[in-house]
Amino acid sequence: MPYFDAASAAPLHPVARQALLASLDEGWADPARLYREGRRARLLLDAAREAAAEAVGCRADELVFTPSGTRAVHAGVSGALAGRRRAGNRLVVSAVEHSSVLHAAEVHAAGGGAVTEVPVDRSGAVDAGAFAAALGEGTALACLQSANHEVGTAQPVAEVAEACRGVGVPLLVDAAQSLGWGPVEGGWSLLAASAHKWGGPAGVGLLAVRKGVRFAPQGPSDERESGRAPGFENLPAIVAAAASLRAVRAEAEAEGARLRGLVDRIRARVPELVPDVEVVGDPVRRLPHLVTFSCLYVDGETLLHELDREGFSVSSGSSCTSSTLTPSHVLRAMGVLSEGNVRVSLPAGTAAEDVDRFLDVLPGVVAGVRERLGVPAATPVAGSGAVAGSGAVAGSGAVGDSGPVADSGAVADGVPVVDALVVDALGRRCPIPVIELAKVIGDVPVGGTVRVLADDEAARLDIPAWCEMRGQEYLGEEPSPRGGVAYRVRRAA
Amino acid sequence: MPYFDAASAAPLHPVARQALLASLDEGWADPARLYREGRRARLLLDAAREAAAEAVGCRADELVFTPSGTRAVHAGVSGALAGRRRAGNRLVVSAVEHSSVLHAAEVHAAGGGAVTEVPVDRSGAVDAGAFAAALGEGTALACLQSANHEVGTAQPVAEVAEACRGVGVPLLVDAAQSLGWGPVEGGWSLLAASAHKWGGPAGVGLLAVRKGVRFAPQGPSDERESGRAPGFENLPAIVAAAASLRAVRAEAEAEGARLRGLVDRIRARVPELVPDVEVVGDPVRRLPHLVTFSCLYVDGETLLHELDREGFSVSSGSSCTSSTLTPSHVLRAMGVLSEGNVRVSLPAGTAAEDVDRFLDVLPGVVAGVRERLGVPAATPVAGSGAVAGSGAVAGSGAVGDSGPVADSGAVADGVPVVDALVVDALGRRCPIPVIELAKVIGDVPVGGTVRVLADDEAARLDIPAWCEMRGQEYLGEEPSPRGGVAYRVRRAA
Repeated sequence: MPYFDAASAAPLHPVARQALLASLDEGWADPARLYREGRRARLLLDAAREAAAEAVGCRADELVFTPSGTRAVHAGVSGALAGRRRAGNRLVVSAVEHSSVLHAAEVHAAGGGAVTEVPVDRSGAVDAGAFAAALGEGTALACLQSANHEVGTAQPVAEVAEACRGVGVPLLVDAAQSLGWGPVEGGWSLLAASAHKWGGPAGVGLLAVRKGVRFAPQGPSDERESGRAPGFENLPAIVAAAASLRAVRAEAEAEGARLRGLVDRIRARVPELVPDVEVVGDPVRRLPHLVTFSCLYVDGETLLHELDREGFSVSSGSSCTSSTLTPSHVLRAMGVLSEGNVRVSLPAGTAAEDVDRFLDVLPGVVAGVRERLGVPAATPVAGSGAVAGSGAVAGSGAVGDSGPVADSGAVADGVPVVDALVVDALGRRCPIPVIELAKVIGDVPVGGTVRVLADDEAARLDIPAWCEMRGQEYLGEEPSPRGGVAYRVRRAA
Repeated sequence: MPYFDAASAAPLHPVARQALLASLDEGWADPARLYREGRRARLLLDAAREAAAEAVGCRADELVFTPSGTRAVHAGVSGALAGRRRAGNRLVVSAVEHSSVLHAAEVHAAGGGAVTEVPVDRSGAVDAGAFAAALGEGTALACLQSANHEVGTAQPVAEVAEACRGVGVPLLVDAAQSLGWGPVEGGWSLLAASAHKWGGPAGVGLLAVRKGVRFAPQGPSDERESGRAPGFENLPAIVAAAASLRAVRAEAEAEGARLRGLVDRIRARVPELVPDVEVVGDPVRRLPHLVTFSCLYVDGETLLHELDREGFSVSSGSSCTSSTLTPSHVLRAMGVLSEGNVRVSLPAGTAAEDVDRFLDVLPGVVAGVRERLGVPAATPVAGSGAVAGSGAVAGSGAVGDSGPVADSGAVADGVPVVDALVVDALGRRCPIPVIELAKVIGDVPVGGTVRVLADDEAARLDIPAWCEMRGQEYLGEEPSPRGGVAYRVRRAA
């Protein structure tokens, strides 16, 4: 059963398992104790720290183990901000950081700190120059991931690190997704990572803080891990994490190249096999094992469910797959489609046959989901004329009326719009508003406009993204007199 | 090789090992995901939570897993204090709480909060009435351990919980040392514990917060563990923790009774076998597996080292075994001797023969350490006349002069003291100041005084404790004209 969600958690590497088992017997005692079991535990801990530091590219005394990558980020951000309090209270982050960074930024802002988010381009990358420009007066810390966890795009970390160094701002790199593939290049100041992303066990993160970086650990601390990570060390897991990091690194070049080939196959074939798909993320500067695409007119949750029935475990940034019912902040920041979003992240050792089977299965699965949503198998592009009222959207489970309504008396920008159609998708969830828009666009004369009324958060991202994909003109949003938001689209083609 | 430090970390219980291995294969995926590996992980997590909650005596939705007992305490204290901010900013703790509680209290105080420490008696127990009296206006939270981690004394948790309930103050119970032996009685509001204390793996703590308790998690959070413990769940370890808690509970009554018998043997035999020993902690209301005693005129680090050579792994609260060179805050709060301190905590399954061998070995080990410190094998009690200068303290490695100096011109309390002796132990480390005092007391006429000059922090605890043990009168301390502190002792017998 192919598991294609390594970016969430990779299955345990055999070396991790072996090391974990061995150190369950040797490494359960308190490494702070002086008796033999404690000394043995201390030796294991020291050796694990040496191995991890070598893989990270830092000194052993610069690296501590934390209970997770998330906790490493939290401790790193709060400690660096506090250590640089005199320099200022501004935190600069990219808009596509992992939620652990953004949550730390929220806490900083709630405490009166300033946060600057550096935007990304449509591929998900920050511009190094724009990032440098954001490092204004009073910047205490900057954070940039090595590569994005949702779309795989690599960030220009080395250039940004140089810019940070130039103005004396420490750079924290969240290397969670990339550390198994290689060390982070450039002059970073702090680095965080997570073992279960590289095939180590859960329960282990690491935080490196370069000598000379001002750092003041926040919250209660104890004598463990240089006062930077309180609580009894999770030693067997730490040993397994370090051992597996060495092991995956030894395989990284060959396995990375192999997976990159499989991902390239997915990137090339999916748009050929499935109509109305957008493959997102940088095609070249990216993680070797991760590819993300979005399918128009598809409900992400149903898509994941159907792929799961076919035996494929993948992830999604669609709003309907999140508990908050908002699309992934990464897709939003990129301005790309969020509906029908699929992230495929291949664990080491993924068989080419499994990828081929995925490509065999995907088109039928997407077609099936579209069919159940009332989308014709043929692309319902502008001019198809397949306009249907809400009654025709079979199985959508939606509430409220939907469908186009002539609204010739509407006024936009203070100018009477005589030819405006209104699609009322209020109360309807993603991907219905976009489907309804697609159905009606053919009825709009070229140059005419349509307004889509929607209160689903995903529409704010997906309607402009649809326009971009379909060559239509997105005019902007305005309050809807009937609640929600009216999204205005002009038929361009 | 008998390991007698279960209170630091217990070896992995066979059930924990088995559960850990099984869930390495079944429980590595993200329990928040919808695909089969995620659903399987979620089932394991839910089952572990149910099992742990049953053992704790709370609802499953009141319990979250944390990366350690320390982190459970930190999250519990900060969350409860923040949740009760309107009620006040006072935190009431016993003076003998685990360092994780005291560190959280330090952070609270550093942030402007008030902290009240409730003292303990010589057995290490708080008085429930005194604790209740400390719950004054503006108390946001009270913390009391179920049983002390260094001396094993059980605290009157049920009475204190009732007092807390009476005034509407939530009580957080640190149950780290006792949870494996049984649920905490009484109406506590929050409870923290640590799996590796009951034979579970490292990397798992638990925090229970009763419904209705105001709780505002502090620091960055995510959607994991009800927003109370951010970061990817350490699932295989959580499963192992819950399974082993059930397992040790099933054995707790029988094994507790058996270990209690072994501990009773140690409590009875040590004072018979070793001269000048104080067994500390409540003899009845205590943990079944833990006993602590202190040996006069003994260096704790050397004692631990010699016991380790004999194959026994024990712990100590002596100052010379801590990185801060201060005696354990627990022994200090109890006002008992800290030198030559030994904590024996028996893991489940400890063989009676190992305890017997410990009792066989201990007297010779203690005598050996004393001999190397220049203490005669026979007790150097008052009147023994064995007064020796510093030169006679062989192998002490001490610096500076020591030994009695006639100081007839001294003035104490404004009254000339014609018969005062001065022992200069400045620059000498525990247990030398007490040894020098013991050597000289015989030269002091009954009713006369001696002053011990010392700058070792342990002397502040150990000189009064020695007086208590030897029936001499401790008069108090005063600044020493030559630096350090002058401890004044009157010969009573």
